[in-house]
Amino acid sequence: MTTTRVRVRYAETDAQGVAYHAHYLVWMEIGRTRLLEQLGFPYPRLEREGVLFSVVEARCRYLGAARYDDEVEVETRVSRARSRTVAFDYRMRIGESVVATGETTLVALDRERAPRRVPPDLARALAEAAGD
Amino acid sequence: MTTTRVRVRYAETDAQGVAYHAHYLVWMEIGRTRLLEQLGFPYPRLEREGVLFSVVEARCRYLGAARYDDEVEVETRVSRARSRTVAFDYRMRIGESVVATGETTLVALDRERAPRRVPPDLARALAEAAGD
Amino acid sequence: MTTTRVRVRYAETDAQGVAYHAHYLVWMEIGRTRLLEQLGFPYPRLEREGVLFSVVEARCRYLGAARYDDEVEVETRVSRARSRTVAFDYRMRIGESVVATGETTLVALDRERAPRRVPPDLARALAEAAGD
Amino acid sequence: MTTTRVRVRYAETDAQGVAYHAHYLVWMEIGRTRLLEQLGFPYPRLEREGVLFSVVEARCRYLGAARYDDEVEVETRVSRARSRTVAFDYRMRIGESVVATGETTLVALDRERAPRRVPPDLARALAEAAGD
Repeated sequence: MTTTRVRVRYAETDAQGVAYHAHYLVWMEIGRTRLLEQLGFPYPRLEREGVLFSVVEARCRYLGAARYDDEVEVETRVSRARSRTVAFDYRMRIGESVVATGETTLVALDRERAPRRVPPDLARALAEAAGD
Repeated sequence: MTTTRVRVRYAETDAQGVAYHAHYLVWMEIGRTRLLEQLGFPYPRLEREGVLFSVVEARCRYLGAARYDDEVEVETRVSRARSRTVAFDYRMRIGESVVATGETTLVALDRERAPRRVPPDLARALAEAAGD
Repeated sequence: MTTTRVRVRYAETDAQGVAYHAHYLVWMEIGRTRLLEQLGFPYPRLEREGVLFSVVEARCRYLGAARYDDEVEVETRVSRARSRTVAFDYRMRIGESVVATGETTLVALDRERAPRRVPPDLARALAEAAGD
Repeated sequence: MTTTRVRVRYAETDAQGVAYHAHYLVWMEIGRTRLLEQLGFPYPRLEREGVLFSVVEARCRYLGAARYDDEVEVETRVSRARSRTVAFDYRMRIGESVVATGETTLVALDRERAPRRVPPDLARALAEAAGD
C-alpha cells in the first residue's frame, strides 16, 4: 500500500466550491504511478520499453468534499494482478475523513495499443503487492 | 434519451495519443446537462434556485479509444429517479462504435450542501424520463 | 476570421464561480483548429502528414468573467504568417461583451519535434488569411 | 523568490507527448499560491476574509518541452505590487534547462467580484517581496 499526498489546486475546484469529481481519477492515477515507482517500475520507463497501461474501468464513490488547498492522502493498493490486467483500489482521505474510494482496472498494451502480457518481473511484483 | 455531440479537444488527449480517461466524466456531465435542459430544467437555473446536484458515484467502462477531433456522441438516459437522488446512464459512440459506457448517481443538495429533496416538478419529469 | 462557439462546462468553472483562466487557452486552440479547418487544412491531417504546431507564446487579457453554461464566441484571426511560425489573435465575446482577448504564436515542428517550414500551400493560405 | 516543484501528470500530457501548454498557467498559479503562503498570507484564508484575486493578464513563453513525470521547478517572484493589483513573474526549469517563463497580473476583488484595495498588511508584504 502506498500513500501519496495531493493538494487540491484552484484549477480543480468548481462553481460549487469543491473539487470537481473528475479530478479524483487524476489523483488515483498519481497514486498508482507512485505505487509502481515504489515497486521499482517507474511508469515512464515502462512506456519507453513498450509497456503501456490503459484504463478499462474506473469507479469512484464520493463520500465527502475536498476543497481548495486541502491535502488529500491517496492510499493505493493492488487489488488484483493477472497476466494482462491489473486492478488498483484507492481510499482518499483528508485527515481522518474518507472523502472518496475508487477502483480502476488497467490492461497492458504494446506501442500499437494491441493487448499484450504484463512483463513477468512486473507481473510478479504486482502479484506480491496484491497480498498487502 | 438525449444525444449530445462532443468533439475531442487537443487538451483532452494524452501522451498515448488518445483522450485521457477522466475526460469521459466531463462528457457525461455535458450529456446530463443537455438532458435536464431538454426536460425544461436548465441546470444553471436550478442552481440559482438552490438546487445543486453532486455526484456521489461515477463509473466508466472504456471499450475503445477516442482520438483528437473525433466526434463522440453521448447518449444519456435517466436510469433511476428517487426523491433525493437521480441516476443517469451513458453510452458514448464514435460512429457505430461504442467507445465507453458509464453511470453516475447524483444527490440533491441545498446551497449549504446539505441533502434536500428534488423539487416535485423536476422529480416528476425525471421519473417520466426514466421510463424512456 | 472564424467564429466558433464554446459553452462553458461545469468542469471549467472554479471556486470563484467563473471559468478558470487557463481554459481560455483551450478555447483559443479550438478557435484556431476551426480556422485551419475552414482554410482546408484540418489539423489532424496535418499531424498525420508530419506537420505539428507547438505554441511558443500565449497571452490572454481577461476583461470580464465567463460563467457556467455561457456561450462564448471565439473570433480567431491569423495575425502573422511566416515560413516557420504563425500567429493568431482572438476575441472572446459573450453576446456583445468582450470577456477576453488573446494572442498565440506557434512554430511548425516535424515528428521528432525539430523545427521545420510550414508546407507551401498552407503557408500561402495562412498568408492570405492574414489579410482578413 | 519562491521555488515550487510540480511533477508533470499524465493527465497534463497531450498527443504530442509533452505537457499541454495551458497547464503551465496552472503551475504558475501553484507557484504564486506558495509564495503568498510563505509571506504569511495563505490564499484560502484571504478568500475567507473576502479578498479574491482574479487574473487580468497572463503570458507564457515556451522555450522547451516538459514531459510526463518531469519535475518542473517553478520560480515565482512578485514583480509589481500596487494598491489594487499585483504582478508575478515565473521561470519554470527542468534541471538547468528553462522550459518556460511567464507573467501574470491579478486584481483584488471583494466577494461580489467588485474591485477593492489589497489589505494594507498584504500590500506591504508584497511590496517588500517585490524588492527580491
